[in-house]
Amino acid sequence: MRIGIVGVSGYGGSELLRLCIGHPSFEVVYASGESTVGQTLAQRFPALAGHATGKLVIESFAPEKVDHVDLLFASLPTGKSSEPLSRVPARTKIVDVGGDHRYVDGWTYGLTELPGQRERIAKATRLANPGCYPAASLLALAPLVREGLIEPQGIAIDAKSGVTGTGRGGASDFGYAETNEDLFAYGLAGHTHVPEIQRTLSDLAGTKATVAFTPHLVPMTRGILSTCYARPRGSLDTARLYAAAEKAYRNEPFVKLVPAEKGRGPHTKWASGSNLVFISYAVNPDSGLVVAVAAIDNLGKGAAGQAIQNANLMTGQKETAGLEGLPLWP
Amino acid sequence: MRIGIVGVSGYGGSELLRLCIGHPSFEVVYASGESTVGQTLAQRFPALAGHATGKLVIESFAPEKVDHVDLLFASLPTGKSSEPLSRVPARTKIVDVGGDHRYVDGWTYGLTELPGQRERIAKATRLANPGCYPAASLLALAPLVREGLIEPQGIAIDAKSGVTGTGRGGASDFGYAETNEDLFAYGLAGHTHVPEIQRTLSDLAGTKATVAFTPHLVPMTRGILSTCYARPRGSLDTARLYAAAEKAYRNEPFVKLVPAEKGRGPHTKWASGSNLVFISYAVNPDSGLVVAVAAIDNLGKGAAGQAIQNANLMTGQKETAGLEGLPLWP
Amino acid sequence: MRIGIVGVSGYGGSELLRLCIGHPSFEVVYASGESTVGQTLAQRFPALAGHATGKLVIESFAPEKVDHVDLLFASLPTGKSSEPLSRVPARTKIVDVGGDHRYVDGWTYGLTELPGQRERIAKATRLANPGCYPAASLLALAPLVREGLIEPQGIAIDAKSGVTGTGRGGASDFGYAETNEDLFAYGLAGHTHVPEIQRTLSDLAGTKATVAFTPHLVPMTRGILSTCYARPRGSLDTARLYAAAEKAYRNEPFVKLVPAEKGRGPHTKWASGSNLVFISYAVNPDSGLVVAVAAIDNLGKGAAGQAIQNANLMTGQKETAGLEGLPLWP
Amino acid sequence: MRIGIVGVSGYGGSELLRLCIGHPSFEVVYASGESTVGQTLAQRFPALAGHATGKLVIESFAPEKVDHVDLLFASLPTGKSSEPLSRVPARTKIVDVGGDHRYVDGWTYGLTELPGQRERIAKATRLANPGCYPAASLLALAPLVREGLIEPQGIAIDAKSGVTGTGRGGASDFGYAETNEDLFAYGLAGHTHVPEIQRTLSDLAGTKATVAFTPHLVPMTRGILSTCYARPRGSLDTARLYAAAEKAYRNEPFVKLVPAEKGRGPHTKWASGSNLVFISYAVNPDSGLVVAVAAIDNLGKGAAGQAIQNANLMTGQKETAGLEGLPLWP
Repeated sequence: MRIGIVGVSGYGGSELLRLCIGHPSFEVVYASGESTVGQTLAQRFPALAGHATGKLVIESFAPEKVDHVDLLFASLPTGKSSEPLSRVPARTKIVDVGGDHRYVDGWTYGLTELPGQRERIAKATRLANPGCYPAASLLALAPLVREGLIEPQGIAIDAKSGVTGTGRGGASDFGYAETNEDLFAYGLAGHTHVPEIQRTLSDLAGTKATVAFTPHLVPMTRGILSTCYARPRGSLDTARLYAAAEKAYRNEPFVKLVPAEKGRGPHTKWASGSNLVFISYAVNPDSGLVVAVAAIDNLGKGAAGQAIQNANLMTGQKETAGLEGLPLWP
Repeated sequence: MRIGIVGVSGYGGSELLRLCIGHPSFEVVYASGESTVGQTLAQRFPALAGHATGKLVIESFAPEKVDHVDLLFASLPTGKSSEPLSRVPARTKIVDVGGDHRYVDGWTYGLTELPGQRERIAKATRLANPGCYPAASLLALAPLVREGLIEPQGIAIDAKSGVTGTGRGGASDFGYAETNEDLFAYGLAGHTHVPEIQRTLSDLAGTKATVAFTPHLVPMTRGILSTCYARPRGSLDTARLYAAAEKAYRNEPFVKLVPAEKGRGPHTKWASGSNLVFISYAVNPDSGLVVAVAAIDNLGKGAAGQAIQNANLMTGQKETAGLEGLPLWP
Repeated sequence: MRIGIVGVSGYGGSELLRLCIGHPSFEVVYASGESTVGQTLAQRFPALAGHATGKLVIESFAPEKVDHVDLLFASLPTGKSSEPLSRVPARTKIVDVGGDHRYVDGWTYGLTELPGQRERIAKATRLANPGCYPAASLLALAPLVREGLIEPQGIAIDAKSGVTGTGRGGASDFGYAETNEDLFAYGLAGHTHVPEIQRTLSDLAGTKATVAFTPHLVPMTRGILSTCYARPRGSLDTARLYAAAEKAYRNEPFVKLVPAEKGRGPHTKWASGSNLVFISYAVNPDSGLVVAVAAIDNLGKGAAGQAIQNANLMTGQKETAGLEGLPLWP
Repeated sequence: MRIGIVGVSGYGGSELLRLCIGHPSFEVVYASGESTVGQTLAQRFPALAGHATGKLVIESFAPEKVDHVDLLFASLPTGKSSEPLSRVPARTKIVDVGGDHRYVDGWTYGLTELPGQRERIAKATRLANPGCYPAASLLALAPLVREGLIEPQGIAIDAKSGVTGTGRGGASDFGYAETNEDLFAYGLAGHTHVPEIQRTLSDLAGTKATVAFTPHLVPMTRGILSTCYARPRGSLDTARLYAAAEKAYRNEPFVKLVPAEKGRGPHTKWASGSNLVFISYAVNPDSGLVVAVAAIDNLGKGAAGQAIQNANLMTGQKETAGLEGLPLWP
């Protein structure tokens, strides 16, 4: 498959490039990126020196010129992709890693592990990749909501992200000196990922779901941990929560259900560099609230990894192709 | 005042030493610490070379031998302080920074800013310093609970701590290589700080309060951020939350109420090295849940700073003595 | 003393503000900063909420308007201070923390611990604060060069700095995601601090000194470690190196000579938040080269701390006033 | 090939496991590790849940029981491998990642890119993998020494390493709280890697080489940067240094020579998770000293990556097999 990457210099684009180069059937034939136009990929990524793909020159994105591309990954800042992507030739499939096409007509929403989604993705030619926070939060909550184990209203989602979640353009706001040894909550007045989360949960619940979503910026480069709190519907124990998740994810290659040994949930580092998601559940002993915790690499299952998984489905590859590398630890 | 510090080599003990040396009326005359017995303070803390206090030799803790000490700060691992502290002479006042005497008969609980607590602390000779997580969480929640603005049952407290919260003995579990670029939740099956939190909130509410408390370990050295989610009682807006806090903390020198500008709550780094607590409030626009966020330095307001504040009250000093240094930023 | 701070929003300016507020005789009456004009200091630094100095409004720097200021600290980007500082009224003393006036006519160079420098500084009204890298490197090397123990030519200075050394404007180049878990050398083709280092060493040696100076950026916020390699002049042992330093620094309150216990030199963290410098020496057993290692806080002895020390001398204060706070550890 | 890993729970062993699992011809059939005996690999490494290799149970190392293993990687603490490895059956090839067999009779030294080494490694059955510091330093210096461009005596090697270089057992000394925001030099009185460096350089020079080797601990998990300073032999420019390296490494798949753009040398992060080494050279403009800088991942080219490369040669695989994954960035 001839692959194009739009926004190759950003964090999501860089990870897409790494995964495509390691993919058995993908060949990167096109790359664009505003801040690095005219450089070769090897100039931008020194590890590509001497590599065939390293000779490719980064262009300014011209949608009309990508008709030699079979599938285009687009990783553009929010609000910047609708217009140019509308001009991409119809024969070129698109996976939009950015946020502009989620729950938009003509675009398929691409969180593979949700019920029935895999089949829809396989037929899609315009695919909206999920947001990084929704990917983690929805995978933790979906089985509980679908089985009616928790109240779908008033779910508190306390999410924590590494700095790459803000995108490379955000670097000037998140310099090392001010970010290291710091932690804060944002989005207290609302966040762009909420409609995607509420819409998906509502569809699963068959009734309106509402969430209090609070993202936090953590001094690390990669990783999202989403800790979710919900009121139980009726009597529940922890085993019942795992049973629901086991039923949903039994055959999923990228979802790992892990018991909370010594009361500890999954570590974000377990997922670093991979497309894996680790999920733990507990019924809180003091309040009876249900707690669901998911850990992903925000650039993996939260962006580029999920995008490759979708592209595999859309192009008839093995779903795990190019995604079998183990996480980097420590 | 002649001061003793038990456990001077740990993180809490080191911070107590730093604050005592900068205190206008405190003179450290006694220091103990198991792993460093026989060293001078200057050998343990190179910055004390040439400093008068640096000549003090670290001893093995012998409770009977501290009767020349006016006030003793004890910073010992959980479970290790009850017996030895019971042998400290009655004339020597004690502030126990550890967890063994909270809500124990004969000991006064010392979170100064709670209603009526300041007066009790001033009379105490045996003082149990609050836990680091409770300090942050209770200061955020207390005004809301006391005014009946939130339901006291089923409060979700999602707390995040830097690594010093685990104590110096925890270092072998939290080596740099495995902690950097990692994040995880623990205490999913319960945590020792819960009774302290629930007891205090229940007292404030006048009815039983319950919490789902989930601590997280964040790759940073100092700092706690506590993000709390509660159901509102009746109709509320954000201004009403601040009004309750303003009423409670109007004259408190260490509590800073901050609006959530651009939706951002307080940064842990704002408090680093100080006894300050920063608090923000919001009514979540999507779910109506109340969100309260507090940021402290876990070694400051969460341990040594709060302990100095209590000692000041117990010995008739100005409450802010030795605590006026500004946070280190960045 | 009425104090002004130019560039209060930068990292150096922020640290000057912190130290001035803790100083027994300094009162900040003027603050300027381009990116934050119109904000109060309390808006810029939330810890100052409720503090008298917090009400001061940050202005755009107007040199003619500071004649009510007794001493002005200027912390401006390189190349930006010559012109405006030339317009400051003569009665207002200046300490320029930036790099534009080092070894410039009419300006006194202010590394206090160099021979004879203290007296010159006390008389100065225009003072050029040393660079952060030179401060660390010169304090380590000066006694050896002055005593003729090492060859003054071909000294290799391998220096490592935390990110605040690049200034706040550098944040966009040094975002967290790209800086954490990274390390690199720069200045391989030359660095602006070299003339200051070579000039000072040449003066001390009485002959031309040359250095290969290689700075490195380390993933930390504060701290400089300078590791210097020089050829010995004649037969030497480690004790001889310490003896020379002992002679030079015996009465210096901020210089701590530390033996290399278990072969370890000083830690940058020992100095964090303070004006201290820690120095160790060794004769390398394999090659006979002399190794000198100095650790400072680049914002302390490398910038704001040194500036306060100079201001104290220039205004007749006790040299250590406002600089007695211990480092923050850990 | 049936592969065994001794010390699979350590940092080097974990990385060997990751690389072996991604290797097209290696199958891990044996794993030992003292602290994790009895666990399955999937229990130790949650990402292996559901993976065939994850079912393997970690054993206590019994050298006599590995005769079903074709090649054994040993990653044991220094001083702990000589005796047990002597009992491994002769038919089982060994790559010792630890330090006990470097320049020991009967063992081949395995830094592949040194002159003539590749051929010797291909014939070896007992292979001593190079140390992490020597790997970086020797690759930077070898071409210069071999061509006689620098004086082989009195070379200063200023090396900086991430924390995994100390091994997992070192974690208790290098807890997060004390390591973050800290930097220090060690080995000022000597280091175990010096004989390996001096011996190799002496062989290349044809005369005795001596070095002042100073390692530093940097707050990062992975990465070594080695900055080397040497006196030139005769007149030199930077191009001449690159020409020598180009001649030596022209066909080496893992060595990338990079110009020092804007005076910046290679970043350790460029190599993270890979077997690559990046090298830059400069003639220092102020002193004329030659500066050579190399960046590697200490667990890659400095340990497990180099070990896989050697194992490939020893077993007739393609030299780059299993090592083609790109570095993780950022």
